[in-house]
Amino acid sequence: MPLPLGLSSALRERLSERFSTAQAVRDQHGRDESPYPTTPPDAVVFAESTDDVIAVVRACNEHATPVIAFGAGSSVEGHFLAFEGGVCLDLSRMNRVLEIDAENMTATVQAGATRTQLNTECRHLGLFFPIDPGADASLGGMAATRASGTNAVRYGTMRENTLSLTVVTAEARLLRTSRITKKSSAGYDLTRIFVGSEGTLGIITEVTVRLYPQPETIAAALCGFDSVLDAVRTVMQTVQVGVPVARAELVDALTIRAVNAHSRTGLTEVPTLMLEFHGSAASVQEQAQTVQALARDNGARSFEWSANPEERSRLWAARHHAFFACLQLKPGARAFTTDACVPMSKLGDCIEATLIDIRETGLTCPLFGHVGDGNFHCLVLAHPGDADEMAAAEQLNQRTMQRALQFGGTCTGEHGVGRHKRELLLDEFGEAGVDLMRRLKAAWDPKGILNPGKVLPPPAPNQQAAH
Amino acid sequence: MPLPLGLSSALRERLSERFSTAQAVRDQHGRDESPYPTTPPDAVVFAESTDDVIAVVRACNEHATPVIAFGAGSSVEGHFLAFEGGVCLDLSRMNRVLEIDAENMTATVQAGATRTQLNTECRHLGLFFPIDPGADASLGGMAATRASGTNAVRYGTMRENTLSLTVVTAEARLLRTSRITKKSSAGYDLTRIFVGSEGTLGIITEVTVRLYPQPETIAAALCGFDSVLDAVRTVMQTVQVGVPVARAELVDALTIRAVNAHSRTGLTEVPTLMLEFHGSAASVQEQAQTVQALARDNGARSFEWSANPEERSRLWAARHHAFFACLQLKPGARAFTTDACVPMSKLGDCIEATLIDIRETGLTCPLFGHVGDGNFHCLVLAHPGDADEMAAAEQLNQRTMQRALQFGGTCTGEHGVGRHKRELLLDEFGEAGVDLMRRLKAAWDPKGILNPGKVLPPPAPNQQAAH
Repeated sequence: MPLPLGLSSALRERLSERFSTAQAVRDQHGRDESPYPTTPPDAVVFAESTDDVIAVVRACNEHATPVIAFGAGSSVEGHFLAFEGGVCLDLSRMNRVLEIDAENMTATVQAGATRTQLNTECRHLGLFFPIDPGADASLGGMAATRASGTNAVRYGTMRENTLSLTVVTAEARLLRTSRITKKSSAGYDLTRIFVGSEGTLGIITEVTVRLYPQPETIAAALCGFDSVLDAVRTVMQTVQVGVPVARAELVDALTIRAVNAHSRTGLTEVPTLMLEFHGSAASVQEQAQTVQALARDNGARSFEWSANPEERSRLWAARHHAFFACLQLKPGARAFTTDACVPMSKLGDCIEATLIDIRETGLTCPLFGHVGDGNFHCLVLAHPGDADEMAAAEQLNQRTMQRALQFGGTCTGEHGVGRHKRELLLDEFGEAGVDLMRRLKAAWDPKGILNPGKVLPPPAPNQQAAH
Repeated sequence: MPLPLGLSSALRERLSERFSTAQAVRDQHGRDESPYPTTPPDAVVFAESTDDVIAVVRACNEHATPVIAFGAGSSVEGHFLAFEGGVCLDLSRMNRVLEIDAENMTATVQAGATRTQLNTECRHLGLFFPIDPGADASLGGMAATRASGTNAVRYGTMRENTLSLTVVTAEARLLRTSRITKKSSAGYDLTRIFVGSEGTLGIITEVTVRLYPQPETIAAALCGFDSVLDAVRTVMQTVQVGVPVARAELVDALTIRAVNAHSRTGLTEVPTLMLEFHGSAASVQEQAQTVQALARDNGARSFEWSANPEERSRLWAARHHAFFACLQLKPGARAFTTDACVPMSKLGDCIEATLIDIRETGLTCPLFGHVGDGNFHCLVLAHPGDADEMAAAEQLNQRTMQRALQFGGTCTGEHGVGRHKRELLLDEFGEAGVDLMRRLKAAWDPKGILNPGKVLPPPAPNQQAAH
């Protein structure tokens, strides 16, 4: 479906060759890591400034045409697929680190800057940005999906680490969501409203995040177990006794096998905890001793240090590639990532029930995750050409989300809702909660142009008139 | 102005003697620690359950009558004063600790439960709730104002520590704002929207907060300086080098004099840092050594330990009573508390300019605060009977807020907006930001019954029609 003529010409006039309707460009912006087929936008624009974003949103608003923010394209739940057509607003060229304020330990970046880029630019100041979702996502996208990853157990998520945002509203007004102070009680929490709103309430163009002093000492450890549950119990106890562990990742035997094949590591193929400790030398030693003792009590087979930086980097690179490594367990397959997150006390039971479910389906499904936060992924692999397998995978995904909810958890710990999980919000928040979200959306985006069809469940047929 | 007749009878029928229009009861609910004169509601109801709250809000909504939530009554900016009349909904009888979940380190309490009550009930489990605004505030009120206090430098504020809320909406619908997990990317952040909304978006009836393991070792220290700025510099450096200090409070010489008189302490009357360190024995020692060295470099006169629990308790009790102690520096006076919070790097300059301003006014104005967060209060004391003094105090208050904004800060670090600071939001967030807040309010509270006239600045006269 082509764009309204007036809109095309307005965008082309402003952006010239940075406005594209080429099929290859549209397809590239209509494809993510979700199981959905390619769903391209009608056009792609490449913004290079906040003024570009204002101009694009203003034009789309005038023509009541969808506008979809696009960062690094690493979403896994159909976040930016153009189910209702419209304009994809690619922010990846807005990738400058605008300011690193070493005294206040903050950084302000354009939305398209990536986390590794930020870390490269603040390293020489002895600072780092801990949030690490695996993919080299853009900071704008990470804020928009309330991302987290391996370090969240100690440093929190984008919710805790986003200090302020520059946002363009649906009606093309520009605002800064808050002052960059450590705390404030002034007014409604605009920053936290935009964090996790997935481009449906406004377009994030700049992000200010918190930085941290590089730890004096970093140590990593690998700890093998006979069973996933022994590993999970170790982490539950670690968190409960208050060890400020920096990373506490579970990878199951199948994931290790995939990682070994993909990253040429030689890890023993058993359920494994990958741990990292940050702090002073004394504190790191104290932390590690405590965890080692807990691991031993839970029947750990091994506890191996990996203290030198190169070895540590290789280890975490291997962990970060787990997603792509696992995809190769079944060449040509797509992944239903699942993203259950439950209260820590329920984690063992929830994972146990999920492992039984996986076994019964017979699907290829490695399991790994950020167990220090009660969060795990089982990567359900299925061939897009095999309708039965795709259906079985989706059913397993649905059961995993429902199980998380039944255990008091959330349907998504860190990936966001996108298109794929929007119906689940009714189960998670109830009608009253979803009603407030719908009212907020309608109040801030009256024409419904911002990433339509995402986050909010579609109204039931008999409610269409009311909404 | 009396309530609509139908509303009075409906409330009396449901609540019988828990509905009151007695002048003494109304006055008691129309008076806070702000400089405003008593501004009572038309009636007070005492809720004993969430069902009571639903019934009261439903009745008020039917009659388009204001309903104002009331917790412990410890606000300082006119938060619950009934400038537009209506019903005060007193939640102080809803004060049960509903659940302490030691495994997940969370507690769920009714909105009227206080922080000391919660701490009493979780102490035997080896857990504690760190947020500590000085007053023995209710947890519902603390969530509603995004409160913090002395421990925020390490443990964060109510923003970071409120995990989920039970809320009654303006239209008397009940919802739970989120699942109690360590993180979630599901939907808009309803929890954070209600935290800090000061009763204008919904009535909080239950609060789930995060608890922490009691630190293995706690040590406090008093550190005297020749000047406030030397003390501030010490804290700025402490935070920058990453010492996880648990409390870092500045009290100026005048505050110390007030505290000595009020709490019969014998502290040296010089600008003083009150510090607390939490952690393992080794970590506490490491932290304290680092801070002591920084203090020495900044010309500290003394660094005294206060390691035993009784002495420590006495010290912090004295600090907590600083507000009331300072009031007694000028018997009969009211306090303009001010609540500037700026980026850490600006704190010294902002405090320095404020001290000069105070000196020039000649007003009695002790200064203290949570300098580890860039937050300080100067308590401007003035006699309500002395119009000139009251005006001068309000002008100093306004200049202090404007100065905070000029230094990149916020007009309120932890007290909230209430009535007193609502015009400042335009300076802090701009028209576009305030417009989003107004739309949110209108979408969630279409009749404007929830604590009207608070938080949001009144529309400019030429905007009245549009809003």
